Amino acid sequence: MEKQGTKAPGKQSFSFGGGVYVGGIASVAGKLESEGPLGAFFDITGEDDMFGGKTWEEAESNMQLEAARYAISDAGLKPGDIRYMAGGDLLGQLIATTFGVEKLAIPLLGLYGACSTMGEALLAGAVLVDGGYAKHALAITSSHFAGAEKQFRFPLAYGNQRPMAATWTVTGSGAVILCAEKGKYKVRLAEATMGRVIDYGVKDSMNMGACMAPAACDTIYQHFEDFGRKPQDYDKIVTGDLGVVGKEILLALLQEKGYDISGQHMDCGIEIYDAATQKTDAGGSGCGCSAITLTGYLMKKISEGVLKRILFVPTGALLSTVSFNEGNSVPGIAHAIVLEHCGN
Amino acid sequence: MEKQGTKAPGKQSFSFGGGVYVGGIASVAGKLESEGPLGAFFDITGEDDMFGGKTWEEAESNMQLEAARYAISDAGLKPGDIRYMAGGDLLGQLIATTFGVEKLAIPLLGLYGACSTMGEALLAGAVLVDGGYAKHALAITSSHFAGAEKQFRFPLAYGNQRPMAATWTVTGSGAVILCAEKGKYKVRLAEATMGRVIDYGVKDSMNMGACMAPAACDTIYQHFEDFGRKPQDYDKIVTGDLGVVGKEILLALLQEKGYDISGQHMDCGIEIYDAATQKTDAGGSGCGCSAITLTGYLMKKISEGVLKRILFVPTGALLSTVSFNEGNSVPGIAHAIVLEHCGN
Repeated sequence: MEKQGTKAPGKQSFSFGGGVYVGGIASVAGKLESEGPLGAFFDITGEDDMFGGKTWEEAESNMQLEAARYAISDAGLKPGDIRYMAGGDLLGQLIATTFGVEKLAIPLLGLYGACSTMGEALLAGAVLVDGGYAKHALAITSSHFAGAEKQFRFPLAYGNQRPMAATWTVTGSGAVILCAEKGKYKVRLAEATMGRVIDYGVKDSMNMGACMAPAACDTIYQHFEDFGRKPQDYDKIVTGDLGVVGKEILLALLQEKGYDISGQHMDCGIEIYDAATQKTDAGGSGCGCSAITLTGYLMKKISEGVLKRILFVPTGALLSTVSFNEGNSVPGIAHAIVLEHCGN
Repeated sequence: MEKQGTKAPGKQSFSFGGGVYVGGIASVAGKLESEGPLGAFFDITGEDDMFGGKTWEEAESNMQLEAARYAISDAGLKPGDIRYMAGGDLLGQLIATTFGVEKLAIPLLGLYGACSTMGEALLAGAVLVDGGYAKHALAITSSHFAGAEKQFRFPLAYGNQRPMAATWTVTGSGAVILCAEKGKYKVRLAEATMGRVIDYGVKDSMNMGACMAPAACDTIYQHFEDFGRKPQDYDKIVTGDLGVVGKEILLALLQEKGYDISGQHMDCGIEIYDAATQKTDAGGSGCGCSAITLTGYLMKKISEGVLKRILFVPTGALLSTVSFNEGNSVPGIAHAIVLEHCGN
């Protein structure tokens, strides 16, 4: 492995020495999410999950547009100031993102990373800003419960029964404006680690946590190795939607590799709903799950200084209905972002 | 519009002053493609379109893996030398890419840009290398005729009839290794322009050329403006799969904006098949169309010095079966890459 200079520490990590600052933040959430434990933190919540749209997909697009506009305004900017966007969603061919952001007329780097998309979008946006290609970039993603059920399981009208191990796709969109100069928030995107496709041969699409935990382990492990760090160097190590089962697997896998993250680990899917009262089975999932937990809650805590440094590492399950029906396993991928409190 | 330094000319362009060189190239093509006008140029061709796989999707994944391995070897490297990959395909949730490249164990930036993906992947790869984040990056994409028919139209077994305006999805995969240092090829990736989602409200998914031409116009126009250039500054201006109808629309739209590209324009979809004898209707399409025309034919001509500078601008039609059936129009996106012959 060649040494690649200070921007490229270790094997698969990035160091944004130039400074990539969070300039604007937005979280848009649906009804169930607004009634959950983090409800008070979201910037915009919907009274229903349609957000003025006529279809689930249009609803999701409208959430993305609202999130983008809110974040851009929050940064004290206009759409014309945002040189590039990096974003995506869960739907086939990214239609939620396409129809959502086209009105903004900002050049788009379309991404697909399943539920890891918030991490992937922040990484791409940070590279564009730190690399000197843009002063402002928008990182955005979303998911919608009904749109995802229709895409991956069955349309709601079928009245399908959900197994207890299933997760509940979050209806939400998160957007972040990344800037070369510091603005009102005291949040810096310091480093990142890009993930690999990791396949342990798990075929149970009803157990997404087990499918994705190996990818989270692979990226977190390599991140520690690339930077010579330990779990205690972070206030929180935040996965997206591993759920209770996936969490246990992740902790065990990392323990085997010599890292105990039990003191720092937090999972957005476990935090975003009150499973007992909201009947959300194994917890939240979807691109929106980690996105709105990060933008609604975590980034604000970092800016306030309550959290000094977190590792944000959402995971994606790389499957489609076609791959699953053809008997393939479900690989995972996880992208890690280091967010730090930066003083005055 | 703020001036953003030499790396960020104009409104939405990139200048890779540091030098991003093409170190390795691969084109893998199916049977029909190998029998077409460019057949002799492809590095690997299949006797059937299965490439050792049991399903169309597995075939496409296998093509990607072959293309990646060939390009890496062509660059005189091993998979472990490639720090990052940027790639994607047409299938829902990128399953061809996921299952194809996972064996390489290279970190993946998953992209979705429909048929513009080769341009998007080269742009992302160039940013990673020029930005100092990697010495070597892999840009890759693919498409498969049967997999695409199944995803977007009907499975072949239905015996569906194709309208004359339909395009034929190319079975092929193209891979490029981008390097910080010059290798055996005399090809440099000099600049790029990221595209925006452009929607002229066209709803005819049987006329993809009309859907995508406005996006190609938007990007090409902005590219000229950002660099202060004219059509004559390029030997070729190459679109991906506009076809005959889309080509006419593009030329007319650019003429209205003051640019006549009739002397330079070339469309991969028109060139890749002999429509009359191969019965491919309106021409080739898919991510693989522009990818293998570029990697199989154009890059070699640039390296030889036959072509000194080209603008490679593949377009994507951003639709899914869901968006189309719900009555949405078909927006387009186009990403432009400048490739130049570089001497000794």
